[in-house]
Amino acid sequence: MRLMDVQTSHAQHNTAQSSDPQSTSASSSARPVAQSLTQPMLMERARNQATFDSSLLTEIIVGGKEAVARQNDAFARIEKALGTDDPWKLPPRYGNMDREEMLLEGLRAARVTVNDGMDHGHKVFYQCNHEWALSNANPFGLTGLLFIPMLKLQCNPEQLAHWLPLAESGMIIGSYAQTELGHGSFVAGLQTTATLDKGSDEFVIHTPSIPAVKYWPGALGYASTHTIVIARMIIDGKDYGIHSFIMQIRSLEDFKPLPGIELGDMGLKMAYNGTDNGYAIFNHVRIPRTHLLSRYNTVSENGTYHADPLREKLLYGGMLGARSTIIRNSAFQLAQALTIATRYSAVRVQGQRSIPNEPAIMSYKLQHYRLLTLISKAYAILFASMSANATYQKLLEAQARGDHGSLPYVHMIMAGLKAWCTQTAADGAEDARKLCGGQGYLTMSGLPEIVASVAGCCTFEGENTVMWKQVSRYLMKGMAAPALPLDMAYVCSYMDTPLSTYDGDAFLNPAVLVQVFEHRAARLVTEAYELLCSEQGSAVTAENTHAVALQVAARAHIELYILRAFIAAVSAAPSALQPVLTNLLIISHLHTASSPLTPTSSSFTSFLTPSQLSAMRSLTNVLLARLLPDAVALTDAWNFSDASMGSVLGCRDGDVYKRIMVWTRQLPINVHARENGGVLREGWEEYIGPFLGEGGVRAKL
Amino acid sequence: MRLMDVQTSHAQHNTAQSSDPQSTSASSSARPVAQSLTQPMLMERARNQATFDSSLLTEIIVGGKEAVARQNDAFARIEKALGTDDPWKLPPRYGNMDREEMLLEGLRAARVTVNDGMDHGHKVFYQCNHEWALSNANPFGLTGLLFIPMLKLQCNPEQLAHWLPLAESGMIIGSYAQTELGHGSFVAGLQTTATLDKGSDEFVIHTPSIPAVKYWPGALGYASTHTIVIARMIIDGKDYGIHSFIMQIRSLEDFKPLPGIELGDMGLKMAYNGTDNGYAIFNHVRIPRTHLLSRYNTVSENGTYHADPLREKLLYGGMLGARSTIIRNSAFQLAQALTIATRYSAVRVQGQRSIPNEPAIMSYKLQHYRLLTLISKAYAILFASMSANATYQKLLEAQARGDHGSLPYVHMIMAGLKAWCTQTAADGAEDARKLCGGQGYLTMSGLPEIVASVAGCCTFEGENTVMWKQVSRYLMKGMAAPALPLDMAYVCSYMDTPLSTYDGDAFLNPAVLVQVFEHRAARLVTEAYELLCSEQGSAVTAENTHAVALQVAARAHIELYILRAFIAAVSAAPSALQPVLTNLLIISHLHTASSPLTPTSSSFTSFLTPSQLSAMRSLTNVLLARLLPDAVALTDAWNFSDASMGSVLGCRDGDVYKRIMVWTRQLPINVHARENGGVLREGWEEYIGPFLGEGGVRAKL
Repeated sequence: MRLMDVQTSHAQHNTAQSSDPQSTSASSSARPVAQSLTQPMLMERARNQATFDSSLLTEIIVGGKEAVARQNDAFARIEKALGTDDPWKLPPRYGNMDREEMLLEGLRAARVTVNDGMDHGHKVFYQCNHEWALSNANPFGLTGLLFIPMLKLQCNPEQLAHWLPLAESGMIIGSYAQTELGHGSFVAGLQTTATLDKGSDEFVIHTPSIPAVKYWPGALGYASTHTIVIARMIIDGKDYGIHSFIMQIRSLEDFKPLPGIELGDMGLKMAYNGTDNGYAIFNHVRIPRTHLLSRYNTVSENGTYHADPLREKLLYGGMLGARSTIIRNSAFQLAQALTIATRYSAVRVQGQRSIPNEPAIMSYKLQHYRLLTLISKAYAILFASMSANATYQKLLEAQARGDHGSLPYVHMIMAGLKAWCTQTAADGAEDARKLCGGQGYLTMSGLPEIVASVAGCCTFEGENTVMWKQVSRYLMKGMAAPALPLDMAYVCSYMDTPLSTYDGDAFLNPAVLVQVFEHRAARLVTEAYELLCSEQGSAVTAENTHAVALQVAARAHIELYILRAFIAAVSAAPSALQPVLTNLLIISHLHTASSPLTPTSSSFTSFLTPSQLSAMRSLTNVLLARLLPDAVALTDAWNFSDASMGSVLGCRDGDVYKRIMVWTRQLPINVHARENGGVLREGWEEYIGPFLGEGGVRAKL
Repeated sequence: MRLMDVQTSHAQHNTAQSSDPQSTSASSSARPVAQSLTQPMLMERARNQATFDSSLLTEIIVGGKEAVARQNDAFARIEKALGTDDPWKLPPRYGNMDREEMLLEGLRAARVTVNDGMDHGHKVFYQCNHEWALSNANPFGLTGLLFIPMLKLQCNPEQLAHWLPLAESGMIIGSYAQTELGHGSFVAGLQTTATLDKGSDEFVIHTPSIPAVKYWPGALGYASTHTIVIARMIIDGKDYGIHSFIMQIRSLEDFKPLPGIELGDMGLKMAYNGTDNGYAIFNHVRIPRTHLLSRYNTVSENGTYHADPLREKLLYGGMLGARSTIIRNSAFQLAQALTIATRYSAVRVQGQRSIPNEPAIMSYKLQHYRLLTLISKAYAILFASMSANATYQKLLEAQARGDHGSLPYVHMIMAGLKAWCTQTAADGAEDARKLCGGQGYLTMSGLPEIVASVAGCCTFEGENTVMWKQVSRYLMKGMAAPALPLDMAYVCSYMDTPLSTYDGDAFLNPAVLVQVFEHRAARLVTEAYELLCSEQGSAVTAENTHAVALQVAARAHIELYILRAFIAAVSAAPSALQPVLTNLLIISHLHTASSPLTPTSSSFTSFLTPSQLSAMRSLTNVLLARLLPDAVALTDAWNFSDASMGSVLGCRDGDVYKRIMVWTRQLPINVHARENGGVLREGWEEYIGPFLGEGGVRAKL
């Protein structure tokens, strides 16, 4: 039976229907020696060890029972519509797709998800797409993620009344044209111009040089009808700096670019290939003066400029929303990678010479050490993002009342979390990929796409190095101020805490961990400040010279925030979840403080005693043993459908090896070769055959 | 002029010829404000600052003046033949290629490179391909990289006389079928069987289960005529373990798989898509008994088995060659990524609010800190690989004389360097990618392919976690032995060194660094050994419990080896290069020891005093300033042709932004859209048009 199964003719696996798991033996993964459990049985056994109910945790992650149901329904509907609901059918994305086909597939998915939201009145796909990448991974997604929020932020009431219904009803598709070839993070360096022509009451949008070409905006290439273009506003020869303008870029009749506009795609990227990040070149394109987005700044017919004195603060506050989305989404993308790696680790067995039966690789220390500490980081990101988002909502309310006092604080938190969370998620996802060994290198493992997608978040919407700089500037400003900001109060008091008295189990107490993290942050912030003060040169030079120390201090401040947010989330959780969440909280921070495999620990080893560090490492081992049975449940809780991961390694049933063969046989290259007697025709005729022939005669063997 | 340039009609950029840089303005990258230097001028200025002659260094890297000339000639010839020699023409690999087209492109390149080697009698492409990936990145490459070395290692004289000429003359194409779906690194777990049928004097090769399917071997899918298959040899019902057999898998007449063999491709991978990593299923396939590779083991007609008592040692020794190649190549791939990032950093300018003129991003501390320390690591890998390879050659000579004494040592060094070098190169290449900001995310930056390619080396030919385990076992065995092995002698003596007396400039002395690294390794090895000894359970359990401490100790031992190899290489270098190489040597190891951004430093902060660490960090700043002018020359020295990198960011001339637009306009998706009035026809007709129409009527704006 086993033999028949593997030797099954390919024809039988050639369609979704015939690859129904029922039609093949359930014992496919049985091994001839010593291994009696199939992969699905190993999976079930690993799942059943959980000490808690993962669906309870799902409610916390997704935001309540109702949100879970809404999300499940939406995913089920769109997966049916996209034809990705059969886990034995090769997902379309692993077909033979080239650049153009990938974009068409993105358009197909975009239309289904956007329509589902409109038809069923939900915003499930406003922030993420059907595969949990950010929603701007498909061409219509940017409208909800950025275009509409920017309209709401920057339009005056008449403009909003005109544009918002058009965008929300899908009568126009929007993009946001800020980044240029020559400038990204440094917005003040943008060079596109918008020059007022008083005679015609129009702005003239123009690209004056190659570095000024708009390059990178999502959906700009071949999908959007309108864009918000960011340009230097010039009136009577005077440069008023960066402003936002709305402009139509394509005809709604035949979709051709409007006169004077060149549009195109940027080709393949590491990920996000379902959308058309594109370029635009403007050759003196005229738009009505009233297309300057005018909530906080106006230009009258005669060219008089007026701006709200708080304009920058208000715009900046509003723009933090995009960062908030990226932070939250990075938790989900890391969790997605970990769901795949955890499930695979539960069903792949591997021996070593000294062990008679082959255990699941999950049982190896370095495997579950990396998996479980990474899982704890995914939760840390999620809870930090929830906390930061709550603070952000309060800021928006306060700003609406005219109170901008907390803007610098919220801005700093969002910058720091953006850097910390995306970097942690990107590195963690890549580590999860490596934890799947060679199989993680397969595109159809789903992991390369997740890794590449979250890696993108490290450089876009503010490159992370720049983000850290914003945090360290806040800290140095705080140090120089007459009184420390509230969130930096620990800098005065850290010498008072009795750190040296703690040992052993004391480090299981979150309050003690807070003291440890405060102590470390206070040291690093103080050291960085002293280094700055010791410099004779300009502030800019001093900051550059000590950039490493500043970044490390910024990191320590943010990691303290993350610890506090985690503690708050655990306190607020139902009591049934408190034991497992507490274990995650502790292991996550013991790892940051004492793991010899993480860069952060070097700043702890300089003040914790060897005995304290050794206690922390022993406790880590204790917590690993406690958490190991929960590994599968802790990833199940994120509630990813098989189709949304598209991973041959990570489906819920654990039937990995059989699925690899079923999907592999469905690959177009193999289907085509089978139609040709098992030969890649062009390869044989054009290259291999002639090469073999060159030796003179074919070898006779 | 500038304006005309950017507004140039796309037609003009549509062919290689018309994108001749002479036909567009040289001032393309000029900025309207304050910036008068073009990108090529910035590049030239940065290159001219070098304090040494980079061509001298090239000779060390490549292996002498003659080798440089041979390499340059070979690359020039094949780039001409492949049509990639014009840096203004979009490289074929960024065309609209799907899975099948990528493989065909790989076959095309393979034929050109292999033929060039045969026609001109060189082995330039035996280890790397035309883009500096390992040569098994193309389908014929495995023959030289693995198939021929394995024949040489495992064939008896008659077998060698038969097979070697066929392989070397290109009359057969080989692959090496070891890895199965269920087992990779744990070779003893492989399940394919080779059962002797005495009646017919044949072995029957068979795949007994799904996990036993051969999966991953390069060139197995659609390119090789023969394979060396690794299988459990069964004679009279007795399992003799893993042996190697040569078998023909495809007809040389029509290339069809031979009866009983199913072959296919694995679909897209993160990289190596020019080759056909494939799968094979054998259904009782018969091969002559004489196809058992029989240098160290024989089976007679009546089924009598005989093996050389040293068989395993001899085979293992021979197989270390593949690791040696991977280690060396990882230096080149990291250097390739750094060449791109360094050149881009020299020509991208970016301001900040407080600086009037925009400086090249290279001048920012965190940029050149990361670049220069990574450059130092590329050299560290190269010198370590040279040293290890010399030791390996000595082992082979000794083994030929029957002396296997140094096998455990060489095996340990190769395992540790494989893990350290591939991980350092993969992380470093990814960091280089991030140093290019958003542009590094573009496929045509060349960086995603390099990152993915070197990342693959972390999991193949021995997963790195397994590699570290081999090092730590050697160390623990050494600790338990009556006398320490020579390379571990420092473990006894480290307490005698006057470490606490060093400060300030002392750390510029390589001999002092050796003491520091010895001290650290001795501590970590001793700690790990004590942890193991303190455990009551089995050795396997103890090893698993303390896997983290063991890995850290292994790393410290290998980093000491790397330091020593670097010192030896500097001593052997021409005196003109000694200053710059010494600076690299020192900064590389100060970084390992004291950077707060690297995980390694935590094991130093626990015994170096704050004042010593602070001295090391100040010296790092001093060395950065010394090395900054040499950054471009230090990457130029690796001698990569523009075509071999295929990077729009990294061409030698530095003309980045102009080239981005020239290549972008040549992308097939844009060419096709232009033919259709600037519209992606199918996207508009099938998805966007209907979507916009759904709102009822089209918007009238």
